[in-house]
Amino acid sequence: MRLRNKPWARDFMAEHSDILVAEPEKMNDGWSSLFGNKNPIHIEVGTGMGQFIIGMALANPEVNYIGIEHFDNVIVVALEKAIAANKPKNLKLFRANGADLLNIFQSNEIDRVYLNFSDPWPKTRHEKRRLTHETFLELYESVLRTCGEIHFKTDNRVLFEFSLVSMSQYGMKLGYVSLDLHAENIEDNIMTEYEEKFSLKGQPIFRLEATFKGK
Amino acid sequence: MRLRNKPWARDFMAEHSDILVAEPEKMNDGWSSLFGNKNPIHIEVGTGMGQFIIGMALANPEVNYIGIEHFDNVIVVALEKAIAANKPKNLKLFRANGADLLNIFQSNEIDRVYLNFSDPWPKTRHEKRRLTHETFLELYESVLRTCGEIHFKTDNRVLFEFSLVSMSQYGMKLGYVSLDLHAENIEDNIMTEYEEKFSLKGQPIFRLEATFKGK
Repeated sequence: MRLRNKPWARDFMAEHSDILVAEPEKMNDGWSSLFGNKNPIHIEVGTGMGQFIIGMALANPEVNYIGIEHFDNVIVVALEKAIAANKPKNLKLFRANGADLLNIFQSNEIDRVYLNFSDPWPKTRHEKRRLTHETFLELYESVLRTCGEIHFKTDNRVLFEFSLVSMSQYGMKLGYVSLDLHAENIEDNIMTEYEEKFSLKGQPIFRLEATFKGK
Repeated sequence: MRLRNKPWARDFMAEHSDILVAEPEKMNDGWSSLFGNKNPIHIEVGTGMGQFIIGMALANPEVNYIGIEHFDNVIVVALEKAIAANKPKNLKLFRANGADLLNIFQSNEIDRVYLNFSDPWPKTRHEKRRLTHETFLELYESVLRTCGEIHFKTDNRVLFEFSLVSMSQYGMKLGYVSLDLHAENIEDNIMTEYEEKFSLKGQPIFRLEATFKGK
């Protein structure tokens, strides 16, 4: 995701620290206490411009959602949308890398991880950067509770093939696979910005749900 | 696969019992002794008109191949092709159901199971008939040796989705997945009759390789 530089982004983010958590690694009391309830917590790693996580938060008030995005210039767009949606109480955002998860969440704190249209890193030598590489699966496993799930959507065939093998080799179990999500009757599918664009072009969207074996 | 009735099929099959094994359940000495060597044995369950298994036998003389097909009217076509190919010494055919495997093979006798364009049995109430249903996976596991593999190709999206989940839930590990086999550089892919037809129409061919966890 490339957006033009936004010099005002940092100030804007600081003004809305009620929804955009400034120092997520310093949440010593845990995220449930920040949300003020014990509802399940679902996170989206690489939340982009926020359409998915905000849509989910509005549709499911009984679930707490956290959108995580690396780029300032992108997460401010999600922040603007969250403000336009009247800052749902069950939504938080913060800026971080996938690799930072362990410093930010406690073991078993998370109920579900969403990965939507993650960067495919198409070159084989960049495999380790793909968010379904085993190094990331290990992080998700650490923060997910027993029976916690990963839900993954992408339009990128090679990334989806890689992810099926990577998760399977890691010992994860697939609970659901669709190789053409929009060919099915899916009433509760909330689309990301990319998904709208690519599915309108007629490209199939791939989707899976998976759990960790030992969990 | 529907072909017209062939009243001469039984006699024709009996005449070529050197390649079309008449009573496969009575192979008490094992298949290696029939082939006369200790080469690995690969079977195709649902061999159809035989193009795949005959092509494989010709391409890989160091592997023994067995094509298994339920329908007389279909297996005679495979038999005719095998005769036209001068009856490769490393090829046997026989008529049986997938469910008969346990009566026909010993434990650990088989090195690889091929499933190509198996009947998709699209209705949910027919799931149990799909050759990647857990009842069949159990049979393959029994006859496959340690590290034995299942190689599966199909053009049917729903069957492939079902198979990924079924194998994963069974505890199998995916070693390879392609969601568009013919988009890749595959020099050694031997096509079935169906595969030629469907891939010419531009339909993607799905392919996976999987092993059993405990094996």
